[in-house]
Amino acid sequence: MTESYSPGLEGIVAGETAVSTVETGLTYRGYTIEELGEKSNYEEVAYLVLHGELPTAAQAASFRQRLTEAAHVPPEVIDTLRSIPKSASTMDVLRSAASLLAHWEPEVNDNSHDANVRKSERLIAKMPIIVAARQRLKDGQQVIAADQGLSLPANFLWMLRGEKPSERQVKALDVSFILYAEHEFNASAFSARCVVSTLSDLHSGITAAIGALKGPLHGGANERAMEVLQEVSSPAEAEAWIRKALAEKRRIMGFGHRVYKDGDPRAVYLKTLTTAVAKETGHDDLEQTAEIIETIVRTEKKLPPNVDWPCARLYHYLGLPIDLYTPLFVVARIVGWSAHIIEQLDNNRLIRPRAIYTGLAERKWQPLAARG
Amino acid sequence: MTESYSPGLEGIVAGETAVSTVETGLTYRGYTIEELGEKSNYEEVAYLVLHGELPTAAQAASFRQRLTEAAHVPPEVIDTLRSIPKSASTMDVLRSAASLLAHWEPEVNDNSHDANVRKSERLIAKMPIIVAARQRLKDGQQVIAADQGLSLPANFLWMLRGEKPSERQVKALDVSFILYAEHEFNASAFSARCVVSTLSDLHSGITAAIGALKGPLHGGANERAMEVLQEVSSPAEAEAWIRKALAEKRRIMGFGHRVYKDGDPRAVYLKTLTTAVAKETGHDDLEQTAEIIETIVRTEKKLPPNVDWPCARLYHYLGLPIDLYTPLFVVARIVGWSAHIIEQLDNNRLIRPRAIYTGLAERKWQPLAARG
Repeated sequence: MTESYSPGLEGIVAGETAVSTVETGLTYRGYTIEELGEKSNYEEVAYLVLHGELPTAAQAASFRQRLTEAAHVPPEVIDTLRSIPKSASTMDVLRSAASLLAHWEPEVNDNSHDANVRKSERLIAKMPIIVAARQRLKDGQQVIAADQGLSLPANFLWMLRGEKPSERQVKALDVSFILYAEHEFNASAFSARCVVSTLSDLHSGITAAIGALKGPLHGGANERAMEVLQEVSSPAEAEAWIRKALAEKRRIMGFGHRVYKDGDPRAVYLKTLTTAVAKETGHDDLEQTAEIIETIVRTEKKLPPNVDWPCARLYHYLGLPIDLYTPLFVVARIVGWSAHIIEQLDNNRLIRPRAIYTGLAERKWQPLAARG
Repeated sequence: MTESYSPGLEGIVAGETAVSTVETGLTYRGYTIEELGEKSNYEEVAYLVLHGELPTAAQAASFRQRLTEAAHVPPEVIDTLRSIPKSASTMDVLRSAASLLAHWEPEVNDNSHDANVRKSERLIAKMPIIVAARQRLKDGQQVIAADQGLSLPANFLWMLRGEKPSERQVKALDVSFILYAEHEFNASAFSARCVVSTLSDLHSGITAAIGALKGPLHGGANERAMEVLQEVSSPAEAEAWIRKALAEKRRIMGFGHRVYKDGDPRAVYLKTLTTAVAKETGHDDLEQTAEIIETIVRTEKKLPPNVDWPCARLYHYLGLPIDLYTPLFVVARIVGWSAHIIEQLDNNRLIRPRAIYTGLAERKWQPLAARG
């Protein structure tokens, strides 16, 4: 056993990847997220991350066709969604749904590269339907079918609300999906790689990743960040509120990152868009509040914001309920998880580390009557 | 970033644990598995692994009482099991069921130590019911309720068959559960720890672990080992069969282990019991076949058998269908997974490693018309 030990595997290399890198900013398959956010769109980025190259016009059209054909879920899964108590968190329900979808997946146990890509594409198409359906069922509303003419982010808003979203809303959601699509060996992607490294299957990996993303130290942070902002009633109270919170040693979600010590490039990029959407939707006050908190956390704790900080507000400005923020992260990140699972299975080695034993030395068993 | 890189984290320390160690044989909380197998029983071992100490008489009685009270599953979950196509693998169905049970778990998002222990105990009681119910539903039979007077392994056989099992059957299953209950930082326990390290919850960790255990490089090996044995029709053909398989470079499941290079102590311990049960049930031929294969793999490949090699035959001698072998591993291992999840959450640090980037250097985005 090697002697080096880094708690939480911080800084430890656990594998190789060609999907993305955080070495100099963040790039997906070689393209910076800033350029993708500005010039590309989520479906194109999904194709890029999954297939390794941007699609040609013919490839983009055929990808769109496959997504459209897969945009439905088995009625049995909808029935199960209906039977789950309303109190269940949407993230827990998504974890169940991803697992359930496997039972109707014709290639579930085919681990070839091509089958895994096909299964990934089908999941990319189905998960937004699950999120919207669960939300409507919880609200006592009818499920709305996908509209074949809409892009994936537009379709999500359509299925959630039953009304056509504005171009600005779609663009903002699309950019957030691009930024959430992939992020190297983050905790959920690494969990998925661990799971499939036993030669298990794609749905097992995705199910595990959803469970990991739920935690507030990962995807759950965007919901927590919004909850924090809602505690502050106006910009005038922001400074006193954050200084008190820091004095009480509260952890403010949406700040700091294991990998980006000098700042998360996604947060920088998304802030401009978020501020613009705030202006258009009449939320300048909340932007001011956020700016005051951001400045003080940066000065006092030396922690720059991460992507969840602006994204939480963006989703708020788009009128989305808080308990959909992390589920929307799932919808976008399935792309990255799939690429990591496929990469792991294409060149697999079982992920099985060792542990330092801190427990009791060997002792002798005692019969029940002789105990305590 | 450190420069040391070991593919699959082989030999890399990824954390600390007081649950078990493989340093000198295998001990759970300080007790050797040989002593536990001989003198203890599965319920007592479950208590030990979860609570850290063997129970007193009063603790054992109250633990039994809690298991009995939790030995039922929501009818909605049974309805979902009924709706899942019969073609779905039992391991996939267990993954869905563990996730679904969370929706009816009153303490689902309470991550305190005590709540996690209570949730673990309830899952330990419920998962055997799920396995038996799914099998009976698949076979077009009615679900059988748990019998309050029976131990957990006995109850499983009762719920599966609707007839009281013999003492010998129960003892053999009980010992296999003891040996499968826990195993340090194996791939599924480590996956569960990764998932909950985001401060996610116990059910997310268990769901991930089931997905990981499914793989043939982990728990799925016991089903694969039996399938291999069924290819050999008699001891007389065993030597020719295994020499041909080795010449064709087939991987023979049930041999070798990432951690135990000189042999798996569980395999050594279980072999004696398996041979005895073979004698009593008239399976001496298969034992002979297995012995011939074992000797040749050991000599030619320098690979000793692991626990799945004798356990597969033991389950066969107990008349269990092959696709329940890995699910029974789940039923037993929930104990160890729970202990690891609780230990991780009691002293958490996010598990988030780094990766070596092997992908393309930064490149410029091209408009659709300029591609391909």
